Amino acid sequence: MTGPPATVPVPHDSAATARDAANARALARLTGARPVLETIAPAREVVPGMTARTILVSGPPMPWRDYTGGQRRAVIGAVRHEGLARDEGEADALLGDGTIEVRPSHDHATVGSLTGVCSASMPVVVVRDEASGRRAFCRMNEGADPASLTFGVWDSGVGSRLRHVCEVVSPALAEVLEHLGGLPLAPIVRRALAMGDDLHSRHRAAGALLRATLLDAVLELSRDRVAERHRHLAAYLRTADYLFLHLVMAAAKAAADSASGIPGSTLVTAMNLNEKEFGLRVSGLGDRWFTAPLPPVSTLRGRLHDGLTTDDLAYVGGESLITETVGLGGMAAAAAMPLQDHSAGSPPEMLRLTERMYRITLAEHPEYRIPALAHRGVPCGIDVLRVAETGIVPAVHLGATLRGGGHAGAVLFRPPLEPFRRAARSLAASPPTPSA
Amino acid sequence: MTGPPATVPVPHDSAATARDAANARALARLTGARPVLETIAPAREVVPGMTARTILVSGPPMPWRDYTGGQRRAVIGAVRHEGLARDEGEADALLGDGTIEVRPSHDHATVGSLTGVCSASMPVVVVRDEASGRRAFCRMNEGADPASLTFGVWDSGVGSRLRHVCEVVSPALAEVLEHLGGLPLAPIVRRALAMGDDLHSRHRAAGALLRATLLDAVLELSRDRVAERHRHLAAYLRTADYLFLHLVMAAAKAAADSASGIPGSTLVTAMNLNEKEFGLRVSGLGDRWFTAPLPPVSTLRGRLHDGLTTDDLAYVGGESLITETVGLGGMAAAAAMPLQDHSAGSPPEMLRLTERMYRITLAEHPEYRIPALAHRGVPCGIDVLRVAETGIVPAVHLGATLRGGGHAGAVLFRPPLEPFRRAARSLAASPPTPSA
Repeated sequence: MTGPPATVPVPHDSAATARDAANARALARLTGARPVLETIAPAREVVPGMTARTILVSGPPMPWRDYTGGQRRAVIGAVRHEGLARDEGEADALLGDGTIEVRPSHDHATVGSLTGVCSASMPVVVVRDEASGRRAFCRMNEGADPASLTFGVWDSGVGSRLRHVCEVVSPALAEVLEHLGGLPLAPIVRRALAMGDDLHSRHRAAGALLRATLLDAVLELSRDRVAERHRHLAAYLRTADYLFLHLVMAAAKAAADSASGIPGSTLVTAMNLNEKEFGLRVSGLGDRWFTAPLPPVSTLRGRLHDGLTTDDLAYVGGESLITETVGLGGMAAAAAMPLQDHSAGSPPEMLRLTERMYRITLAEHPEYRIPALAHRGVPCGIDVLRVAETGIVPAVHLGATLRGGGHAGAVLFRPPLEPFRRAARSLAASPPTPSA
Repeated sequence: MTGPPATVPVPHDSAATARDAANARALARLTGARPVLETIAPAREVVPGMTARTILVSGPPMPWRDYTGGQRRAVIGAVRHEGLARDEGEADALLGDGTIEVRPSHDHATVGSLTGVCSASMPVVVVRDEASGRRAFCRMNEGADPASLTFGVWDSGVGSRLRHVCEVVSPALAEVLEHLGGLPLAPIVRRALAMGDDLHSRHRAAGALLRATLLDAVLELSRDRVAERHRHLAAYLRTADYLFLHLVMAAAKAAADSASGIPGSTLVTAMNLNEKEFGLRVSGLGDRWFTAPLPPVSTLRGRLHDGLTTDDLAYVGGESLITETVGLGGMAAAAAMPLQDHSAGSPPEMLRLTERMYRITLAEHPEYRIPALAHRGVPCGIDVLRVAETGIVPAVHLGATLRGGGHAGAVLFRPPLEPFRRAARSLAASPPTPSA
């Protein structure tokens, strides 16, 4: 169930044995997940701990005053979308004094794309891991327009697209999912990996498979006539390949949460960023964040839209890195040759990128396989000890954003090494008690 | 428009110059094709020269008495489907005395999958090359069941599935295509090549893209309610990834026909097989077939269904090799890593297979590109001279069939070299007149 056994090169003392056992448990949960898309609903109805005055954001926690870029713009947009403030000044005051709380998504079983901003009325996809029973959530984007909260933009156009998605598209999708009795996601991930998707920066195949399945279901449930809301759903799906990103993010979050909190496990269970810092969590150390400042945007490599340079970029946060946590995205670069220009640069470099990742992971996923590596499973279960020992950091495929908000392209992001080292030292300082 | 220039290693005499010019013309037509799926209609209404007593089959022409296997079974099935004979004996007599004519598809602007059998009432897809204005045709299969005329099976189940496709599915599809105003195929081919399809043995991506497009159109045109025939179309599409094969075959045939008949051109414009022989045509030699006996099935390599060996196989004809003629299928093996077990065996061998094909082709397709080869265009325009000189034959991805009919798996087929050599000698014997 967990693929080839972990072969951590450590002395076979009792601490190492206990760690291996802990990692085997964590891995079994990570790779044994059976994610099913259950429904889509307003965040306040389903996300644990969500209130009318909660705004979720991507990244490790940070005081409100430190949000100065795209996340700030998106949070203020969400506050205004919810009708909690008339203007930016009022929103800022309410956020500053804690009347409105900015909360890390991860503490609410939620992950967010880029800014990750989500407020009470916004629809989130609900994915349940049938193996563990855990649910996780991710906000559905307000459409294909790069002017969106996701990319750190708030204006009246964003507001009206948000309302359309909240009031029309999302209820129609919920109806279709109810008709289907839920949609198992692993089969789509498996097929998409053989069709050029990395499931982080590219979702062409998954998006097409999802779209065909949903449209077929719309036809089935339209016994009488095709409802107007279903036509709007069909229109949304026409340009919404990225929708599957939200599904796979929630699926990955449910799997990672089920693998977390296992004493002694050195498995990475979360990686994310806010505007300023990269953060990670490790299974054996529960909800504690290990953070470090983000590398300068000038160090990012990839492909930007015509005429842009890294000078035009700014970080706006991001938690789609949860896909790398389960072995997709940059970890599975070898599966996604169409992304070469956005990532390692050439087909041989894409293969090498994934091959290097096997040196810092504990297993090969038993189901998610890469045809270009002779059907080898994706490198799965990032081991914070191996990262610390080898100095190899996880490869991340990240969407790039403009300083002023908006989509700028896609890049290969390499997280700072230091938080992995710190987490490894923390684990060494508190070794688990060997179990019988 | 035709990719890198042809660099035929020949002396620069006037004959060679004339040949280069002829090949450049042929290549421009082959790679400049803009195929659009126009409609689907009964063969008698659209296929040139089709009569109520014509049965089209795959392969170079052969006397009726020589058909002894799957093609014989399928032809007799078609005769009975058309109500032209009560039983096999009567059908055989009418076919033997020429009352019912067995005709090579290629002479009717048509190509057929495997047996290639098509009679008057059966629906064919109509693809028009907007660059040349030429139309070509391919029969639409009667569903996903491997018991089908395509695989050399005729029984009452095949008959009833055929009627369902003729009477319900095909008219519904025609209606959807009319609503769309035709469906350009090149964009789907281009995307599918970046999604693991070779467009001959594998159509997972193209099928998903096609299905989503057609279902979306069904929703659009269902202003009142969803018609029952459209529900049947949706059901057909659920298991019909291979449908795209018929579309790309017709598209390739239209392109190849537009490149044919150019005096002096050494470009291959058709490759096919009947039960006994492989055949090819060359642009400069028009409609003449160069044939040779098929290699023993024991020499085929690939992946057969559980428990089968090559002893269980028999040839039943096939013209899906028209996809290789335009640079897809086995020629584009490097694009289709998921097919490795059915083809060259491993990822590096898949890359090498396509790389070898550049040695026998005149161009790289300007639009159909292979991400795993750093976006190089597929090897396009098989040159009979280069095949003769190098001894390298085109790589073909072929469906394998059982002796008694039915689907057995997929294999890598290497045509006999000899007809290429003979065609090369014929061209040398009648060099074109150098033009001014």
